[in-house]
Amino acid sequence: MTGFAPKNPDFAARVRDSFGRQGAMALIGAELARVEPGAVDITVSFRPDLAQQHGYFHGGIVGMIADSAGGYAAFSLMPADASVLTVEYKINLLAPAHGERLIARGRVARSGRTLTVAQVDVVVVRDGKETPCATALQTLMAMVGKSDAGPRI
Amino acid sequence: MTGFAPKNPDFAARVRDSFGRQGAMALIGAELARVEPGAVDITVSFRPDLAQQHGYFHGGIVGMIADSAGGYAAFSLMPADASVLTVEYKINLLAPAHGERLIARGRVARSGRTLTVAQVDVVVVRDGKETPCATALQTLMAMVGKSDAGPRI
Amino acid sequence: MTGFAPKNPDFAARVRDSFGRQGAMALIGAELARVEPGAVDITVSFRPDLAQQHGYFHGGIVGMIADSAGGYAAFSLMPADASVLTVEYKINLLAPAHGERLIARGRVARSGRTLTVAQVDVVVVRDGKETPCATALQTLMAMVGKSDAGPRI
Amino acid sequence: MTGFAPKNPDFAARVRDSFGRQGAMALIGAELARVEPGAVDITVSFRPDLAQQHGYFHGGIVGMIADSAGGYAAFSLMPADASVLTVEYKINLLAPAHGERLIARGRVARSGRTLTVAQVDVVVVRDGKETPCATALQTLMAMVGKSDAGPRI
Repeated sequence: MTGFAPKNPDFAARVRDSFGRQGAMALIGAELARVEPGAVDITVSFRPDLAQQHGYFHGGIVGMIADSAGGYAAFSLMPADASVLTVEYKINLLAPAHGERLIARGRVARSGRTLTVAQVDVVVVRDGKETPCATALQTLMAMVGKSDAGPRI
Repeated sequence: MTGFAPKNPDFAARVRDSFGRQGAMALIGAELARVEPGAVDITVSFRPDLAQQHGYFHGGIVGMIADSAGGYAAFSLMPADASVLTVEYKINLLAPAHGERLIARGRVARSGRTLTVAQVDVVVVRDGKETPCATALQTLMAMVGKSDAGPRI
Repeated sequence: MTGFAPKNPDFAARVRDSFGRQGAMALIGAELARVEPGAVDITVSFRPDLAQQHGYFHGGIVGMIADSAGGYAAFSLMPADASVLTVEYKINLLAPAHGERLIARGRVARSGRTLTVAQVDVVVVRDGKETPCATALQTLMAMVGKSDAGPRI
Repeated sequence: MTGFAPKNPDFAARVRDSFGRQGAMALIGAELARVEPGAVDITVSFRPDLAQQHGYFHGGIVGMIADSAGGYAAFSLMPADASVLTVEYKINLLAPAHGERLIARGRVARSGRTLTVAQVDVVVVRDGKETPCATALQTLMAMVGKSDAGPRI
């Protein structure tokens, strides 16, 4: 339970549809693991082509799913005729992303008419144990009247 | 000319070697376009699997090469026995990344013994014309005594 | 010359008027040193009650005038019936602010209808020599129809 | 209870001593409301000279105590021979700071040997009711061997 009431009852289908049309999410094998009002989780399983030279997840992959998890968390609360845009984000990398799976958990911190602020935590799972590897703070913008579009992010 | 004197005369080879070992940079087709002391450019050509649903570059790809361009700009000034770590970055997405090529230009703003601050501008090239699409401010850390490692980023 | 055309020909008077009504700017002795379209400089002279325990300018004072310089730079380009709001900013402190005067130079990097992105550099002046002590990246929002208000920042 | 074990048993006295020597905290009437391992709260009561032109707290005051609350939360976990430095922070202003009192709550998110990451929430209290007005993410650095110094921030 997130405490947010979605403006669009079909928010989950809309998030899944938009996510499914993003070539870059498919490229890295990202999946939607949770879609609730104001809360979206994205996971990625490890592959060598997602790595940096030590065999850990590349920081760019961590940033990419953090950005998307926060973006879709914001999108889930927007009206049916709006799309979402990432204005900016800031991410702190807390530890090497060494493990078999990443989970980025995007949560809306403040939902306004034009701007949304999201907080995102990313953990890496290794032998079933979660370790925080990044935390992010993000600003998103609703583009009203762009109903056919999903997030640009 | 960047005004920085590299501590390691072989900095360019070291940057290229580290970049070449990153699976994630190969995955997205990223290339090193410039390697000077404190200044590294990375380019990516458009492919549908790097897109979001409007056919523009995905914001995650923009963030990924921005992070790497700043990281390698910092790495180029570090001593031969150090590796580099992205501590954090903040990125503003200025315009849709609509075009045939992205160029991320990482520049060191302050080079300290432990911490480096880099500034990164990303442009998208369309019909030969550059449009700014993102700007970032990044903090990196030198890990001294980790000479065989390239950037974790 | 900043290359920006102001929407409001009276932008400079409007910036000065708004600045003059901010109690907090008076409290720290801040002054407007430059007001051009998209470019505002703010200076503060050293006083012991602006210090941290080493006798340098407190980081909070550095952040405060960085935020205001970027905010007023954005405000200078807004229409006469808009006020400005700081959405967020990120600031890197580059060196101790040791000197007799701070200068924060706010410059608009991108001016949109709703959102503006500003870049701010802060230097500390000691014996006539400038040293960079902070750099910031900031997002601001125009609040149209709030004409009598200056920046909230 | 914060779950952190302080390296210095006298952490609270050290935080209070350092805070007491900061001219800028006295200037704005800031007070330490809580000092626990990895958790520091700072409050400021409203005065007209802390305002912007609408009679709300100035955003610069919000940023100043957010920076200090995170800085002292980090400092509380550092060894007795270290001082703390703000490397950078990013702050989102969520709502006008309209009320009689601000409370900034700094909490350590990750405590490393050299770097600490803190998360800070700022609320404004009006008629006894708290409203979130800002959230920040901050990176701090331990300067080992600078035992007599408190935070530079």
